[in-house]
Amino acid sequence: MTPDEFREYGHKLIDWIADYRATIAARPVRATTAPGEVRAGLPSEPPAEAQPFDAILTDFEARIVPGLTHWQHPRFFGYFPANAALPSVLGDLLSTGLGVLGLNWQACPALTELEELTCDWVRQMVGLSAAWSGVIQDTASTASLLALLCARERASDFSLVRGGMQAEAKPHVVYVSTQSHSSIEKAALLAGFGRENVRAVPVDEKFALRADALDAAIRADLAAGKVPCAVVVTTGTTASTALDPVAAVAELAGRYELWLHVDAAMAGSAMILPECRWMWDGVERADSIVFNPHKWLGAVFDCSLFYVRDTEHLIRVMSTSPSYLRTAADGRATNYRDWGIPLGRRFRALKLWCLIRSEGVSGLQARLRRDIANAKWLAERVAATPNWRVVAPVPLQTVCLRHEPPGLAGESLDNHTRAWAEHVNASGAAYLTPAVLDGRWMVRVSVGSLTTERADVDALWGVMREAAETAG
Amino acid sequence: MTPDEFREYGHKLIDWIADYRATIAARPVRATTAPGEVRAGLPSEPPAEAQPFDAILTDFEARIVPGLTHWQHPRFFGYFPANAALPSVLGDLLSTGLGVLGLNWQACPALTELEELTCDWVRQMVGLSAAWSGVIQDTASTASLLALLCARERASDFSLVRGGMQAEAKPHVVYVSTQSHSSIEKAALLAGFGRENVRAVPVDEKFALRADALDAAIRADLAAGKVPCAVVVTTGTTASTALDPVAAVAELAGRYELWLHVDAAMAGSAMILPECRWMWDGVERADSIVFNPHKWLGAVFDCSLFYVRDTEHLIRVMSTSPSYLRTAADGRATNYRDWGIPLGRRFRALKLWCLIRSEGVSGLQARLRRDIANAKWLAERVAATPNWRVVAPVPLQTVCLRHEPPGLAGESLDNHTRAWAEHVNASGAAYLTPAVLDGRWMVRVSVGSLTTERADVDALWGVMREAAETAG
Repeated sequence: MTPDEFREYGHKLIDWIADYRATIAARPVRATTAPGEVRAGLPSEPPAEAQPFDAILTDFEARIVPGLTHWQHPRFFGYFPANAALPSVLGDLLSTGLGVLGLNWQACPALTELEELTCDWVRQMVGLSAAWSGVIQDTASTASLLALLCARERASDFSLVRGGMQAEAKPHVVYVSTQSHSSIEKAALLAGFGRENVRAVPVDEKFALRADALDAAIRADLAAGKVPCAVVVTTGTTASTALDPVAAVAELAGRYELWLHVDAAMAGSAMILPECRWMWDGVERADSIVFNPHKWLGAVFDCSLFYVRDTEHLIRVMSTSPSYLRTAADGRATNYRDWGIPLGRRFRALKLWCLIRSEGVSGLQARLRRDIANAKWLAERVAATPNWRVVAPVPLQTVCLRHEPPGLAGESLDNHTRAWAEHVNASGAAYLTPAVLDGRWMVRVSVGSLTTERADVDALWGVMREAAETAG
Repeated sequence: MTPDEFREYGHKLIDWIADYRATIAARPVRATTAPGEVRAGLPSEPPAEAQPFDAILTDFEARIVPGLTHWQHPRFFGYFPANAALPSVLGDLLSTGLGVLGLNWQACPALTELEELTCDWVRQMVGLSAAWSGVIQDTASTASLLALLCARERASDFSLVRGGMQAEAKPHVVYVSTQSHSSIEKAALLAGFGRENVRAVPVDEKFALRADALDAAIRADLAAGKVPCAVVVTTGTTASTALDPVAAVAELAGRYELWLHVDAAMAGSAMILPECRWMWDGVERADSIVFNPHKWLGAVFDCSLFYVRDTEHLIRVMSTSPSYLRTAADGRATNYRDWGIPLGRRFRALKLWCLIRSEGVSGLQARLRRDIANAKWLAERVAATPNWRVVAPVPLQTVCLRHEPPGLAGESLDNHTRAWAEHVNASGAAYLTPAVLDGRWMVRVSVGSLTTERADVDALWGVMREAAETAG
């Protein structure tokens, strides 16, 4: 493809995307294809000869688009907002068009330095002190794995340069809560701790980790000859955006020398609002933090920020320096390859830089405040309606709710909940993802897509009532 | 930003990228900025108010572009070709514009199914049997970590569901070669094996792993009561594209029940050429393979393919199934979150699909053949010129060479080598990355950028001769 052909089709795609975003509300939110349907509609063998790009676009529209669940839809209330704000889409287009890689500083100085700058901008935006340094990772799953690897190597005094985890005499233990994200346990297992050494600490009535229970668990492990190694607190759990008590846990982490990792993947965005910063009070005493601008903030996926206080420790755990990667600038510049697992890296800072400049901090703040207000508005409606219940506190933009008609309880209530949620999803009018809280299924309404306005939340409320009350 | 503003600036960016690609040859290949210069030229604080996108583009041109090392330049001969072919740039633009995520099948059916399809297309293109299933990872570093985690859990009979690596009675050992990529040792350390349990097996005169030495190392470890766990062979090493003997190692892996991982990150692309497939003869007996279409093949970074034979094993190692990710389709569809570390995933298959369709298999083959011929042409020139030497076999597109003027040896030769390479890089006329081979610095010429023609290789040869012979 020549640059001029690229120009021609690039303009077509820009128009297609602009139209898609402008008219997205008219589409069903959830994909309408059955498992295997998309694949079956496409040739099973690669083409021997080049095909015109127009043919590709025709298939894209006919075969791919029906199989999309539209995350940027104003009535997407599932999982979490994964906003791909348009300025960040442009920033990412620049990155892709440049096709540069940052293996080390010299391989693309601007890539490294803009990443340093934007990570520092976000640090300031969320009110963290200058003691923190950041790096862009793909996802919070990866960042939390890095945190636990750092913890493992600190507690074992760098077992990796010796016999590894398998040579450790005493088992190292990781503490999470029963509400921690599944990626935390996964990270602990991948890091070699073993499921027997992951403690799921109980939560209180607000679904927040109980510091007293954590203390007891640590004492029990010490008494059993184990090594308490790391604790992960969540600022904004996945199920209900519950807020673990960071300060109280930091106190214990300090006392018992645990690595403290703060998983603020979802709620980190809210920390750009000064009125929300109490939610992670104590965070300055943590060792690492992950926060995903690719969620609510609006940087198109993937853009997960990992902040650490002790960058030297991180580098010591992750670094390699083979000859083919050495340059004369090594001592004078950051080499982000030593801050994570992948060696290669995209110019991901561009999308974050374009987002922040194009929307401004005040613009981002205004949007998040809108979403929080919309969530509270919905929660009030739900709470005020007979047979409906808000089943968890609503500190941010997620409303956990249930329709509880008389006579339904236990498994039959679960069946009702899942049935009406599926009814909503199948209608295409909105998309919701149910989850289990306190042993029972409930429906999460995660407000915060870029284009979600009060009218969309109101429409959702009508759709939910109809689905649940008619089905019930 | 409204869709119409996006349309306006999107068109500008498409034109900018088309012009950039059309005129890239006129730029110095390496960035011209000193460490810290890019960052110092930009505001250290985030803007409170929204800024017009034109201002962002102005800063991009003035502040960012001088700090770019141009990987898509026809005289970029450093590291490896990281081709961002224009059809794949368009495919990635679609992905970014859609802003969809694949947490599971239902979250975006087309994302999962096109990934299955394109991974299978590439499987066919490189001549692997239908026993292999693929998934897109970010990089080979991550894929190799997954391979070693799979190996660890197979050898330990799923220690992760019990006490983890730390509870294993006998140390598990990983075998690599002295020429393996640094990411392999890094993966072994992160997976908890420990440096003492990573064996760097010696290589032969072609820099290929010696199967007899591997056999001896395994026997020694068995005799010492250790558990041989995994071996990694490389098809196309980083320093010199050396080819480890896959079949002979597969024989040993079978005999001693080792997980066999094939690192074909760079040379995997060449396997689309039937005449190159002898290079990984025996690959069907491996357990896992990594191959990066984001290198030579042309899919814009990141797009690393990880193939396994036993998908059930991979899923058992990596899976999680919390309530908030469960859907009714779970039993009937692939959930790629259970095939790797990150939970979220971009629609990366689009860029691979657009690349393969737009260039066709025959177009991709023709380009790779051009590059191999250009490398051989250069190697012949070097070999035929007094005081110049090709220091490693040239099976593919990388030429390892040295200018060895009379009287220079040892460290003074190293100094000469690095000095003339730096002279070339500083000139901006071409970009080269030296490396150590057999204890001495040499210069790698990695041919294979999309736009690199014979004339560019010829020009490089002239530039190298002038730099080395004048400096000498």
